[in-house]
Amino acid sequence: MSIAVVCLSGGLDSCVTLATALKQHHEIAALHFSYGQRTEKRERRAFEEICDHYRIARRLRAKQPALREIGGSALTDKELQIPSQSASLDAPSGTGEVPITYVPFRNGQILALACAWAETLSADAVYLGAVEEDSSGYPDCREEFFEAFAKAVETGTRPRTHIAIATPLLHLRKGEIVAKGLELQAPLQLSWSCYEASERACGRCESCALRLKGFEEAGAVDPIPYQKS
Amino acid sequence: MSIAVVCLSGGLDSCVTLATALKQHHEIAALHFSYGQRTEKRERRAFEEICDHYRIARRLRAKQPALREIGGSALTDKELQIPSQSASLDAPSGTGEVPITYVPFRNGQILALACAWAETLSADAVYLGAVEEDSSGYPDCREEFFEAFAKAVETGTRPRTHIAIATPLLHLRKGEIVAKGLELQAPLQLSWSCYEASERACGRCESCALRLKGFEEAGAVDPIPYQKS
Repeated sequence: MSIAVVCLSGGLDSCVTLATALKQHHEIAALHFSYGQRTEKRERRAFEEICDHYRIARRLRAKQPALREIGGSALTDKELQIPSQSASLDAPSGTGEVPITYVPFRNGQILALACAWAETLSADAVYLGAVEEDSSGYPDCREEFFEAFAKAVETGTRPRTHIAIATPLLHLRKGEIVAKGLELQAPLQLSWSCYEASERACGRCESCALRLKGFEEAGAVDPIPYQKS
Repeated sequence: MSIAVVCLSGGLDSCVTLATALKQHHEIAALHFSYGQRTEKRERRAFEEICDHYRIARRLRAKQPALREIGGSALTDKELQIPSQSASLDAPSGTGEVPITYVPFRNGQILALACAWAETLSADAVYLGAVEEDSSGYPDCREEFFEAFAKAVETGTRPRTHIAIATPLLHLRKGEIVAKGLELQAPLQLSWSCYEASERACGRCESCALRLKGFEEAGAVDPIPYQKS
């Protein structure tokens, strides 16, 4: 029995990542990680519905509200405005590279918990739907980060524990991710990407913009509802 | 202004680590991380009292109860018995090396959060009171783990973020740690190490045994109360 832990936020990327993992493992354990982000409840609903769709029984819903206390990101601090696509660079940072929606070392938190769970389950892989190529410039979405983190897990767990960090979407463009999701019949209609809204996606935030670009590149129509512009 | 985040469980080792960090940084931010361990409340009290002692205003109390859900450790699962010192090896693991009190990748969780906070505070170091030489054989207390984790943090945070992972006790024996604490006038009387009890330390669990051994080696008397044997 090969078990994999899949980090499933409920977004488009994690939904396609799960569909990929299902092809390669006998059993899936799905982890949802809330960190006080604005659309926490809506993402959690997407998580449950995607798990229901695939009949995944083993689910862990974890929270780390301290990330909201720490702040420093527009996703967790309502005082900071989420930029629209055209203004999504993080001007105040001085680097001109990392967007204001970057949550400090968020993927470090998620992977640390996923790997702890994987160790207890004797799982051999942890999947995360990070995207480097066509994404937002988050430092914790880069291949070198995942390689370094995998080494930390290898050295920081039991000698018998060996966990691969799998990021099958890392070098895909958004259009390729959508195409892969359609090919694998992933329930994209249940996924949620919008940073701002919970009923109908806003269509304007950087996450909506990327998602819509992906569907356009794939020549497909996004099945989720959007606000009228 | 040089800021350091100190992971302060409230135990002997973290108390001495804090005393060390205070010598080297202008400001300290203290992180307490609860994970559903048996003596959670007592450790939290020690954290607050040690912070009060040093007048540390910047405190973050974080919880990750999912580690209890994950289980797999005698510290978080009441079904598993905490061994006394003489029987502290993890027989069921088959490795004969990692104790049953090992909490899967616990230091990975703590450091991930500490580094996220450090990034937001522009701190340049995260201190953790891990002990490799004279400790319990936890894989996430080894130097190679901390080196690998530091690399993960360097690659997974903003380009301007540079956080050293400081483990000043890593290669000290327990007796040396106690001696260092006494030399730095650390408030050891406020620290708490026992895995079992919250009023008077049991004096028998592996953590009490190590602590008592440390005081004995240092030729000192532990100021905290113990149950009568």
